[in-house]
Formats: sequence, C-alpha cells, structure tokens
Amino acid sequence: MLIALLPGDGIGPEVVEQAVRVLNVVTDKLTYESAPVGGAAYKAQGHPLPAATLDLAKRADAILFGAVGDPDCDKLERHLRPEQAILGLRKELALFANLRPAKLFPELADASALRPEVATQIDMVIVRELNGDVYFGEKGMRTTASGLREGYDIMSYDEAEVRRIARVGFETAQARGGKLCSVDKANVLETSQLWRDVVIEMSADFPDVELSHMYVDNCAMQLVRNPGQFDVIVTGNLFGDILSDQASMCAGSIGMLPSASLDDQQKGLYEPIHGSAPDIAGQGKANPLATILSAAMMLRYSLGLPDEADRIEAAVAKALAGGARSPDLGGTMTTAQMGDAVLAAL
Amino acid sequence: MLIALLPGDGIGPEVVEQAVRVLNVVTDKLTYESAPVGGAAYKAQGHPLPAATLDLAKRADAILFGAVGDPDCDKLERHLRPEQAILGLRKELALFANLRPAKLFPELADASALRPEVATQIDMVIVRELNGDVYFGEKGMRTTASGLREGYDIMSYDEAEVRRIARVGFETAQARGGKLCSVDKANVLETSQLWRDVVIEMSADFPDVELSHMYVDNCAMQLVRNPGQFDVIVTGNLFGDILSDQASMCAGSIGMLPSASLDDQQKGLYEPIHGSAPDIAGQGKANPLATILSAAMMLRYSLGLPDEADRIEAAVAKALAGGARSPDLGGTMTTAQMGDAVLAAL
Ligand SMILES: CC(C)[C@H](C(=O)O)[C@@H](O)C(=O)O
Ligand SMILES: CC(C)[C@H](C(=O)O)[C@@H](O)C(=O)O
Repeated sequence: MLIALLPGDGIGPEVVEQAVRVLNVVTDKLTYESAPVGGAAYKAQGHPLPAATLDLAKRADAILFGAVGDPDCDKLERHLRPEQAILGLRKELALFANLRPAKLFPELADASALRPEVATQIDMVIVRELNGDVYFGEKGMRTTASGLREGYDIMSYDEAEVRRIARVGFETAQARGGKLCSVDKANVLETSQLWRDVVIEMSADFPDVELSHMYVDNCAMQLVRNPGQFDVIVTGNLFGDILSDQASMCAGSIGMLPSASLDDQQKGLYEPIHGSAPDIAGQGKANPLATILSAAMMLRYSLGLPDEADRIEAAVAKALAGGARSPDLGGTMTTAQMGDAVLAAL
Repeated sequence: MLIALLPGDGIGPEVVEQAVRVLNVVTDKLTYESAPVGGAAYKAQGHPLPAATLDLAKRADAILFGAVGDPDCDKLERHLRPEQAILGLRKELALFANLRPAKLFPELADASALRPEVATQIDMVIVRELNGDVYFGEKGMRTTASGLREGYDIMSYDEAEVRRIARVGFETAQARGGKLCSVDKANVLETSQLWRDVVIEMSADFPDVELSHMYVDNCAMQLVRNPGQFDVIVTGNLFGDILSDQASMCAGSIGMLPSASLDDQQKGLYEPIHGSAPDIAGQGKANPLATILSAAMMLRYSLGLPDEADRIEAAVAKALAGGARSPDLGGTMTTAQMGDAVLAAL
C-alpha cells in the first residue's frame, strides 16, 4: 500500500521521519513516496500545494502529514500561503471528517496544567467538520459605502453537509460511550440553527445515542471545568478548530495528540494536532509521539491493520512509562531519542 | 445618578438583588428603576426588549444587568428570543467595548480546575468587541441550487470598528502591564486579516505597548497551558465570547467574574459573565459575587466612585477569606447568605 509522506514545514520533517521508522518496524506492507507541501513547496516550486503533490495524495492509500506554517510566508497573497496546502488537501480529497481523540496517557498526569484528578477523567473524541463553514465560504476585502476597508467571510452550512458529519458523530458515539454533544452557537447564528435542527432530526435514527446540545462558549468553559462529562463532541470547522486545540491541551501536551481526516471511504490524511513550531525547528526538540500515534490511527482506519496500530500505541505507553520525555513533557530527550524509545519498546 | 436594573431571567433577579443591597451600603448617591428584559419581558409584554426597557437603559447613567436566557423561548423566532435583548442593548447603546477581567481571588486557588500554581498566575483583561463580527452581519436561511436548506451568517469588520476597539486594548494595556495580545484567525479569515493589518498600523501610536498576535486556536490552548503569559487580550465578538468564558473558568468559578460593556463616553452596562442558569433558578444556589463585582466596576468606570468600588472589592475578598462559599465554590451558602457575608465585611 502506498503512503504519501508530506512532511511540510518547521518540525514536520523531523517528526514524520520518526513515524516512518516506527511504521517500518511493525509492517513491511507499506511503500512510501514523499512530496513537498506548505512553505517548503512554495519556496521550492512557487506553490504550497504543487500539482504533483496533490496527485500523489490522490493516488496514495493514505497520507501522513507533518505540519505547515512558515513566518516567511505571512505576507504572501492568501492563495500562496502554507496553510492553503492543508485546506486544499482537505477540500480536494473531500476529507470532511476530522477525528481528534483527546485522552491523557496516565503516565503524563503530571504534565497537564489541569489538576491530575481532572485531567485523568478526559477521554473524548472531537469530531470536527473540515470542508465547510466560514473556512470555505466567499471571502475578501471590500470598501464600505463610506470608503473604509472591510474584510468579510461568509459562514454557512447546508443540511447535507451537516448530515454527513453528524452521522460520523452519532456512529462514533455508538462505538464508544453512547453520548454525543453537538456544539454550536444557535442563540446567535443561523448557520448554527440549521446545524442544530438537522442534528435533532437525525437523532431519531440513533435512539441508542444520548444527544445533548451546548453553546460553544459554554463548551470552552466545560472543557476546563469538567472535561470528564464528554464522550463525543461534534461541531463545525471553526468551533472544532478552537475546541480541539483547547481539549488537547487539557489532556496534556499538544505534542501527544494525533488526528485523522477522513473521506466517506475511510481514506484519510493523518497529522499531529500541533503545528510547524518554527521556533524549535531543526533543533531535535520536537516530540514525535503525536505523529507516531497518527501513524497508528492510519493503520487502523485506512489500512486495515488494527493489530499493528495497537502495537504502536502500546509501545508509546511503554516508552512513556519507561521515562521517555521530550522538552514539552518536562524532559530533555531529543526527537530521535523519543523515536528510539518507541522502537526499543517494540 | 440613575441606575437601570435589568434583572432578566433565571438567576438574574436573585443576584441583582444582592448587588443592590451592597450598593446601598457604600453609597446613597444612586436611585434605581427596574424593567423587565429577556424571556421575562417576552412573557409579560411580548418582546424581549420592550421599548420602555430600552428607553430606561438610554436615560440611565449606568445599567446593572442580570442574565437572559430561557429554555421556554428556544423555539421562538430569533428576533423574539431572550438573547436578542442583550444583543439589542449592546447595539442600540453602542456598547462596543466589553472588558472582562480574569483574575483568581487567591482565597479560591483550590476551586480552580487548574493546578494552583497555574491558576494563581492568571491576571488578565479580555477586551472583546461587541457591536460587529458575525453577530451582527446579514444572516438567514436560504435554499441552495440543489434545493437544500442552508443557514448563513456574514462575518465582517471594517477598519473603523477595529480601530475603536484596538484603541481600548492598547489603552488598557498601557494602564496595566504594557502587553497586548491581539487574537484572530488571519491564516484563514479575511476579516481577521483586516483586523491584524489595522492593529499593526495602530501600534505605531503606542510604542510603549508590546504587541503580539496569536491565532485563536493557539490562544485557547495557551489559556490552559500558560495563562500567566497574558496581560491584555483584544479580540472580536465571536472569539471573545469563547475565550473569555474559557479564561473565566481557568480563573476559578464563572460565578465570580464581572464584566463591563462600554460606549465611547464610558457609559456602560454591567453584568456577570455567567448566564441565567435556569436549572438552579429560584433556589438560592446562585453565587451573587460576579454581580456584586460588576456593581463595583460600574462605580469605578461609569459613576466616578472609585473608592466605593475599592470598598466592595475588598469586602468580597474579606468574605471569601472568612470562608463564604456558595455551591459553585464548593460550599453550601445561599445567595442571600453570600450577600450577608459581603455586607458584614463592609
Ligand atoms: C493551519 C490551519 C489552517 C488549520 C485550521 O485552522 O484548520 C490548523 O489550525 C488545524 O487545526 O489543522
Ligand atoms: C447570550 C449571548 C447572546 C451572549 C453572547 O454570545 O454574546 C453571551 O454568551 C455573552 O457572552 O454575553
């Protein structure tokens, strides 16, 4: 099976390298092809998502992605910025369902900013819509009637878009604790009102799932106050962006958390939740575990290799139990040493 | 000076009552007039913001507001829902600057979900824009070309709107620690790009303020990871809604935190950050301290009575030090008993 490796910017290449080392130990069924993406691709080829990179992503059975984002590119026109690469991949490949599990490895209870008794309750999946919302609506700069510069972005969802992501939310809840919390801002936004209406309509088909609704501001609060109350959260692209980063931090270091972005055939792109972290790039300080755990999700969801996925996850837990700690976890181990620790545990 | 009392729904009346008791002890310069607002006003008069209520708010020197929100009203057309009352007041009175201080009373270090050493570092003000953004753009339901229901909301800011709130942010930072963090999502939104461009332009007028920029997803994370890094945050209406609720919870109970919403003449509406909490309404379980502290902000910002404001804040700290604890703080005292404790401390 062909894996597209898109390491990207900043710490992306370092962490992807470690994940490939780990994959090679658990399976010989994979072949790899790499391509540039993000700021690296812009600098080399003039576009953050070159045609050959997109083509590779389409041909591959799954995509392992590092990170994009490069301060050198902040002044470029929007369509040339690194972030457009990940947004373009999500849209072109119809990767509409982003699964972001947030769970604290018990070994890391001390690394969370939350009290250990709060942090260890966290075991949730955030299901974030990735193909719509204010991310992909019409947007631009215009001039108001009184001659002022104005920026605008149209937020919207139609019922089909809501249904397909809500279904993923309901099914994820069925396979877990049976509780789904739909997060919106229906007291202010019409987009949210449609979202809430459609989720309620669909709940008739999932009588075994306990559905609740929460406003996004309250949810941001509850994720600190009592994160143990959540099983599965389903929400739109923008709220999901904010809440999943917040939840990941509640569950320990952002350097620990993987994600999957899936189409409706379980083809997917796998990436750590953290970004390109240009400030520590190339210094061996990055924690590769989020990418290694993303590789495990890839084996499970897209490649039909669940046992190999289990082995990787067990090895990560064992490495942590054995004291493996990168700087974000309060330790001093380098990126490669973290990879070594996982390999040793395998 | 005339104070408009708008107690509203749920626990609103209970907490406003205690704040008035406290105000009456520290000053005899105030007179009060009450009017219904929110779901209570809809039920009594068919509209969440009756003309007489709006008129009172306009005539008054300041407004003390409880909360709005009533599950009975969730099915009403949007313009009749309780939330429209607070949105209407903010817009009609041009209350564009929402100040939300988040600081943990040291007495409550144990009440935070964050580790005490993290929680006690928190001392910030979130400056949230209240008159624009996706809250007030064109919005509605429409049908797509393929006949699907679609909800939409237009997000926008023009440069004048950004300038007037950014100025409040810069000036607030000047009066405090000199650090301003502007929060946006400029890597995806044009509205945010304009926001960032204008804030950068203005920074030339405030060379003594150290300006930084942060994406909203990263900010949600940093508010958990290292909230002590923030002095003043300035952000738009939607991001401010989410981040300020989150920050308040990091700083202890949402039952503790006040807010001010100001126009450009320092006229203001003062309200606790918490909502109407219909589940505990009428049971004496609500913590009135957020409203009492909002009354203190009112004395300081709109009424020119800073010494009286100081007295109230000192009395709240003293009551807490003496062990006053409502259920949200892990205690058993009723709303009135919490009021009594503050009065006793005065
Ligand atoms: C890089 C950026 C465009 C992206 C997003 O906002 O979706 C990132 O924050 C994420 O969450 O994957
Ligand atoms: C009640 C609601 C409309 C309001 C808002 O979203 O602004 C509230 O959450 C707040 O923060 O004051």
